[in-house]
Amino acid sequence: MAKGQQNVVVTFLGGVGEIGKNMTAIECGGDIIIVDCGVAFAKEDTPGMDAIIPDVTYIKQNIKRLRGIVLTHGHEDHIGAIPYYTDVFKNVPIYGTALTIGLLKRKLEKNAKKCNLNVIAAGDTVTLGNIKVEFIKVVHSMGGACALAISTQAGTVFVTGDFKMDNTPIDGKKTDVQRIAEIGAKGVLLMLGESTNVERKGSSTSEMVVGQSLENIFLSNMKKRLVIACFASSNYRVQQILTLAHKYHRKVVLAGKSMKAIVEVASACGELHVPKGVIVDSVGKLLPHETLILATGSQGEPLSALKKMSKGEFNKINVGSDDVVVLSSSPIPGNEKSVYDVINDLFRKGAEVIYDSMNDIHVSGHAYEEELKLMLTLVHPQFFMPVHGEYRHQYKHAEIAKATGVHSKNIVIPNIGESYGIGLKGIRKHSNVPAGNMYVDGVVLEDGQSVVNDRISLAEYGMLVVLAAVDMDRGVIVGGVDVVARGFNLTDDVEKSIRNAVVEGVNCADFDKADIDEYARNVKKSVRKLFYKDRQFPIIIPVIVED
Amino acid sequence: MAKGQQNVVVTFLGGVGEIGKNMTAIECGGDIIIVDCGVAFAKEDTPGMDAIIPDVTYIKQNIKRLRGIVLTHGHEDHIGAIPYYTDVFKNVPIYGTALTIGLLKRKLEKNAKKCNLNVIAAGDTVTLGNIKVEFIKVVHSMGGACALAISTQAGTVFVTGDFKMDNTPIDGKKTDVQRIAEIGAKGVLLMLGESTNVERKGSSTSEMVVGQSLENIFLSNMKKRLVIACFASSNYRVQQILTLAHKYHRKVVLAGKSMKAIVEVASACGELHVPKGVIVDSVGKLLPHETLILATGSQGEPLSALKKMSKGEFNKINVGSDDVVVLSSSPIPGNEKSVYDVINDLFRKGAEVIYDSMNDIHVSGHAYEEELKLMLTLVHPQFFMPVHGEYRHQYKHAEIAKATGVHSKNIVIPNIGESYGIGLKGIRKHSNVPAGNMYVDGVVLEDGQSVVNDRISLAEYGMLVVLAAVDMDRGVIVGGVDVVARGFNLTDDVEKSIRNAVVEGVNCADFDKADIDEYARNVKKSVRKLFYKDRQFPIIIPVIVED
Repeated sequence: MAKGQQNVVVTFLGGVGEIGKNMTAIECGGDIIIVDCGVAFAKEDTPGMDAIIPDVTYIKQNIKRLRGIVLTHGHEDHIGAIPYYTDVFKNVPIYGTALTIGLLKRKLEKNAKKCNLNVIAAGDTVTLGNIKVEFIKVVHSMGGACALAISTQAGTVFVTGDFKMDNTPIDGKKTDVQRIAEIGAKGVLLMLGESTNVERKGSSTSEMVVGQSLENIFLSNMKKRLVIACFASSNYRVQQILTLAHKYHRKVVLAGKSMKAIVEVASACGELHVPKGVIVDSVGKLLPHETLILATGSQGEPLSALKKMSKGEFNKINVGSDDVVVLSSSPIPGNEKSVYDVINDLFRKGAEVIYDSMNDIHVSGHAYEEELKLMLTLVHPQFFMPVHGEYRHQYKHAEIAKATGVHSKNIVIPNIGESYGIGLKGIRKHSNVPAGNMYVDGVVLEDGQSVVNDRISLAEYGMLVVLAAVDMDRGVIVGGVDVVARGFNLTDDVEKSIRNAVVEGVNCADFDKADIDEYARNVKKSVRKLFYKDRQFPIIIPVIVED
Repeated sequence: MAKGQQNVVVTFLGGVGEIGKNMTAIECGGDIIIVDCGVAFAKEDTPGMDAIIPDVTYIKQNIKRLRGIVLTHGHEDHIGAIPYYTDVFKNVPIYGTALTIGLLKRKLEKNAKKCNLNVIAAGDTVTLGNIKVEFIKVVHSMGGACALAISTQAGTVFVTGDFKMDNTPIDGKKTDVQRIAEIGAKGVLLMLGESTNVERKGSSTSEMVVGQSLENIFLSNMKKRLVIACFASSNYRVQQILTLAHKYHRKVVLAGKSMKAIVEVASACGELHVPKGVIVDSVGKLLPHETLILATGSQGEPLSALKKMSKGEFNKINVGSDDVVVLSSSPIPGNEKSVYDVINDLFRKGAEVIYDSMNDIHVSGHAYEEELKLMLTLVHPQFFMPVHGEYRHQYKHAEIAKATGVHSKNIVIPNIGESYGIGLKGIRKHSNVPAGNMYVDGVVLEDGQSVVNDRISLAEYGMLVVLAAVDMDRGVIVGGVDVVARGFNLTDDVEKSIRNAVVEGVNCADFDKADIDEYARNVKKSVRKLFYKDRQFPIIIPVIVED
């Protein structure tokens, strides 16, 4: 079939609140590929969940047409769901750069053997059925990040992935604007553009600036011990810290499991160069000015090294007035309280804490407004969909696309579960497919949403167990009524009204015909009514036994 | 007794995470006064609570020495706890400016009669036993805000309250730097300084700038309807909006109960001047360009007018593509998700939404670093305590105080429940007093902390009710075991192991001696053990009945 007679179909399968972030399916001429397969993390509206992963029902239904999975980079929100779906993806080839696949292998542990993992380099093209995917180097907060030029019979789909334009990256590997320009010149049918920092004006700052700020901190604290926390996966940040430690004759102790593991993975694939002898196993007899602790926990994560240090619970490292603690990060939205709790506790222990973005100790890995405009200009796609963001980000990114010349009727703001066909005749919405959130709490939950809903109710209102024995022949309660409350303020008065409501609930059942379930339903209804007027909705569990 | 021979004692009774914010007791020569009596609001770590108020046990114990309550201004976190303690404070005189007392009266409703409320003006001094309190005008985000110069036999305590230095306030009433300088020149023993914005460099922006930005929005949207959301209590903001509406011939519809109520209170006491005829009851037949909706909900509050509009649930006002919605506010830390949810939904309805601080549509009511330095310089206290902030804010404010000349041994960072004596011999910590958080969920909870703890566990892990009937003579279960789970993923396998654990729990009790409670304890222990290894801690409620 000649080019242009077909449609390319794009389906958004994942992303909690941030559309298109975690998983997208692209298909043409009968073949499907998946771009990324990541997790989202639990927030206040999904309490106690380990992770939230995309629903892959649509992929299971079409598994025979799935030709491969391509990964833009190795962050959790792009690769983290694969370990939950190794059975689904058995034998499906997975492609990514060395660091991406290295991190995925580490996550998969023993299951890595089950998976068909393939390392490619930026510049490579892989053929997946009748779809070709070219990986194009982009700068991000970690190495090995790529944009994707996906060639189909209907035209080229350009996926930016997470990116920024850094023309002075610390490893010299810039976003390949020349190749992107070339692809744009040949004609791009559709672009999916990340929208994370669309609200930030101007351009992002180069990672190099962080190195300069960190060096100032080294210079002004020559006598103190340094504790620096950053994302373990930020290999450029880790690189700069190791290089500075070497330059200023400090030994580095890695604190936190993931810091050790990721340093190993990144070194092995050449994305991190550890100066010889700079990393040591423990503080040992090192003096403060000879020591640098490189720790996990820049987001205040409960089990991280920095969190434990702030609580005085970290093995062998006591933070105190000899320490300067640097959080080389900024709080991810939603993590503010955890981060500031850690900072408050470190101050209380007497440490100096350097943490705010005023100090240029962190830069974002995502493009700002002017960089997004540049990308749109280089690619100049016929159709555009803003992805990786909340609706407000997508909306603003759509406005920017219009301003750079994309026709407004060729711009669509997609949502999770939506599927679009794009071709010669324009863009057309197909029926929605099953998609959305699957919850993981130890295991993938079958009916996760109801578990989440119950948890939210329990948190908000607490719960009541009401217990009564009923004489089935007479339809009356025998003995008393017991009330057990948790997360609920059970005063004597309230307990008394609940008891009365239970008695009423039993009495209003027709005892000739009532079975135990009907008594329970009536009791629940009767107790629930007590709290309606105050807009309280505790979870009520009636336990009615036959006497 | 001559001045200097006594101590003044300062005790910090309230403030959730932000020390000294909600309630402080100051005493000297046997007399006690209270500064402010406010609430904090529930966050993710106190789910479902209406409010958190200070523990007043210490005040109850010393009620005979309490001479009065002085209020710095009318925000909830400074007056909101009084309605819960009207019985405790019966007959105790309460002092504040007209707007402060007006807002308090509105909160107290019928109970206002019970209280001894007294309106003072900035510049007034009240005598409370042997303590004199002078109210000094400061600028804040609402009118009627005052700093306090509290004269005692031991010296003067200067309480900044919430303040900023705005030399072009829209009502012309500046922070009274001349009077503060005068008081400072006479000598201040102790200063309690608010620390909210200590991390922000430079100085805050004048409220006047917001007016200019809002006027630009009026000018560039002459044909559209305007919906503006702000805090109802921000009378200066409301004033500017009403003035602009009048100037550009728009009628204003007030949306939200508190907006209507506060406009009434503020107008009555002269802190708001409503241009004649500008406020109308309903949109009626007004055209979009003739209309301005002034709404509550700038923080995305669940029952607010703006939230309802974003959901299409607001009576008679449908937001759509004819609307420009302005959130003249910035999200209070912790409210980000609620605010952005509203913004996303308004965009989805087709409205243009103007919301970020880049647009200068909001300024803070709290002093920045340079303003805090100026206040320290004007007051130049002998002793200094940074208050109203997390530890990191207090720490930084202490650093600033040192830099402006306060001796470091004269600076103390206080915590809730702590009590300090300050006098000729320096500063000395007394024993702690009962203080901290009382939770309100409908009523003031007696054991709120355990309710909160249970709710957090329920949210994180869910709950299980296990039900069995035991033959007490033989110590065995009769019939089956029932398991009811909520907020918990009860798979068949898990249910089976729980059943086995219940049987084991019953069997391991010594049935000759065991009573029903012992069976229940054993069952609970046995079931709990199942989840230890996975670090899961669901709340387990055993219901064991005698067969």
